[in-house]
Amino acid sequence: MILSHFLVISLALNAGLLYRDYCNGRHKAQDVFSFNNDCKNSSLVTKRDAHVAKSKRAFLETKTQSSSPSPKSLGDIIDLDHLETGTSLAGFGIPMVLVHVRVQGKYSLLLQFCAVLFPNGDPTMYERYWQQMGDKTTVVIPGWKFISYFSDVRSLCWFLEPEFANAVIRLHKLVGNAVTEDRYIVVGTGSTQLFQAVLYAVSPPNASEPISVVSAAPFYSSYPLITEFLKSGLYKWAGDAHKFKKDKPYIELVTSPNNPDGLSREAVVKQDQGILIHDLAYYWPQYTSISSSPADHDIMLFTVSKSTGHAGSRLGWALVKDQEIAKKMTEFIVLSTIGVSKESQLRAAKILSFVRFP
Amino acid sequence: MILSHFLVISLALNAGLLYRDYCNGRHKAQDVFSFNNDCKNSSLVTKRDAHVAKSKRAFLETKTQSSSPSPKSLGDIIDLDHLETGTSLAGFGIPMVLVHVRVQGKYSLLLQFCAVLFPNGDPTMYERYWQQMGDKTTVVIPGWKFISYFSDVRSLCWFLEPEFANAVIRLHKLVGNAVTEDRYIVVGTGSTQLFQAVLYAVSPPNASEPISVVSAAPFYSSYPLITEFLKSGLYKWAGDAHKFKKDKPYIELVTSPNNPDGLSREAVVKQDQGILIHDLAYYWPQYTSISSSPADHDIMLFTVSKSTGHAGSRLGWALVKDQEIAKKMTEFIVLSTIGVSKESQLRAAKILSFVRFP
Repeated sequence: MILSHFLVISLALNAGLLYRDYCNGRHKAQDVFSFNNDCKNSSLVTKRDAHVAKSKRAFLETKTQSSSPSPKSLGDIIDLDHLETGTSLAGFGIPMVLVHVRVQGKYSLLLQFCAVLFPNGDPTMYERYWQQMGDKTTVVIPGWKFISYFSDVRSLCWFLEPEFANAVIRLHKLVGNAVTEDRYIVVGTGSTQLFQAVLYAVSPPNASEPISVVSAAPFYSSYPLITEFLKSGLYKWAGDAHKFKKDKPYIELVTSPNNPDGLSREAVVKQDQGILIHDLAYYWPQYTSISSSPADHDIMLFTVSKSTGHAGSRLGWALVKDQEIAKKMTEFIVLSTIGVSKESQLRAAKILSFVRFP
Repeated sequence: MILSHFLVISLALNAGLLYRDYCNGRHKAQDVFSFNNDCKNSSLVTKRDAHVAKSKRAFLETKTQSSSPSPKSLGDIIDLDHLETGTSLAGFGIPMVLVHVRVQGKYSLLLQFCAVLFPNGDPTMYERYWQQMGDKTTVVIPGWKFISYFSDVRSLCWFLEPEFANAVIRLHKLVGNAVTEDRYIVVGTGSTQLFQAVLYAVSPPNASEPISVVSAAPFYSSYPLITEFLKSGLYKWAGDAHKFKKDKPYIELVTSPNNPDGLSREAVVKQDQGILIHDLAYYWPQYTSISSSPADHDIMLFTVSKSTGHAGSRLGWALVKDQEIAKKMTEFIVLSTIGVSKESQLRAAKILSFVRFP
């Protein structure tokens, strides 16, 4: 029993090291994965219960496709005697590799590699999936469209295209990963902009010192850079949430699944004066299991880069409970970029509305 | 002679006041202009030489259209005895109203009203023009496009779509309003983001105090807000350039034609330690006369909101002489939004490439 546990841990380490080697370019892409991938940097590795992952994993899969599995398809079972450190996704296109092991006759999901790498990597492996979808998600935009700054003057977030908002609500209801009722949707130029919009929105405007921003290590390497690059007097990066001991207001970033380790996360500091931002960019069934209860946090961030792989669209959205925070986030985006590309919103609306959950 | 000058000034004042009334909603749109316009705020009013304006004004006009003038078309001559404070643009669609006067038998352009109003106004009057163009500027984007973050990894600005860059160069060559040779093109989510990118790029990163940002009054009302909203330690708003007397490094914004008064501008402070940003958003022939020599400044900002009216696309570009500044601007846009919507760039490339200069 102890030996088998040791073996599982050892294999996980081997797999992780090989994957890291791959990402560092020591192996060619086809040595480990069958899809083209420009990954260069950190990985998102998730250890999950096999049953839940299996039931939720194929939300982008169509019925036609799921009826024709390839020899090496998503969730293949690999015996310990024939363990491979990666498995092909040919014919599917979801940027994830599951490795199952059989230990003492019992199958379990050992590792789930996410190949959507960030910031130096690129979700190009989604491309094949969307190519296979043909013309269904093609958008046609005439030259006279999107002249106006405004999308819906009645909306708090007046540059949010109603079609995109509806597609976001539909998708969350379908997947069951986040509550949309009694929430304001704020659209952003990617979740990177939305993260900064939240910092602006929740930071006290006239405090004697900038509010601390923390996240439990290991955290997404760009968070400190994004927080610090303008030397804002409103907020400052304060590092690892585990080490935050001040009895003062703070902002905690909870990234779940976490980038770079893929683990599910909860808030760490848990003090009264804390404001939580939940970065749920990877909280989709192709990366992790989805809880039976949809996420119900005050501020939740999502992005099409991770949900459908359209990183080039630079489009994200926030689900925000508090009206004043949503208003100030909108204000940030107006001051930062006077809204968000309507072309990207129109296209994402069509693409998101096509996502199925079998 | 003195009386006629007084009369011209008085009429200009009347026109300005009536236009302001219109913008404040005291007159219905059709009372002054024949096109729909949501203008609410500041105006861009330019006093120009009629001859030059006439020769350059119609860069968006096609040959078909220019051969069928409407009774109240661009540049109508209005006799002093029948002076109107606005004139229709029916059948043309360029968001500008020219008012001519005849004083002692000599015609001259008294006022050129620009109806592209910002930030509360909206260039919706461009819509009709693009509708008349039919399908020529329609773009079709399949679902598998723009998965990648990258547009051209060899380019300094790696998220700049080559098609858009080529369209920008072609347009500047066609219009002759700016030098593109030996310049880096940096694309931004509107010129608002590019303005902030320049501030980040040219501010000393480790100075003992933030660098001063100035502009000659009257200046675009959003400049101070955009400069101040994050309380950056890198730069600070320092108001009217005319009043800037410090013998210290500074950044001067030169907006030409200026918003809100439409006048041509040059740098005011003229000290050795100054860095100039030329905001040339309105430096297009539908707003002003174009000099015989293209603008040749170190940092020049443009936007499709003003050049073609596609404000909803949130797309601008900078022409930058210095490589290090262009690199740091790119870095800002990566940290701010990880690039710029590729859908917007693709569409703008097509629209810009359709612009003709008869």
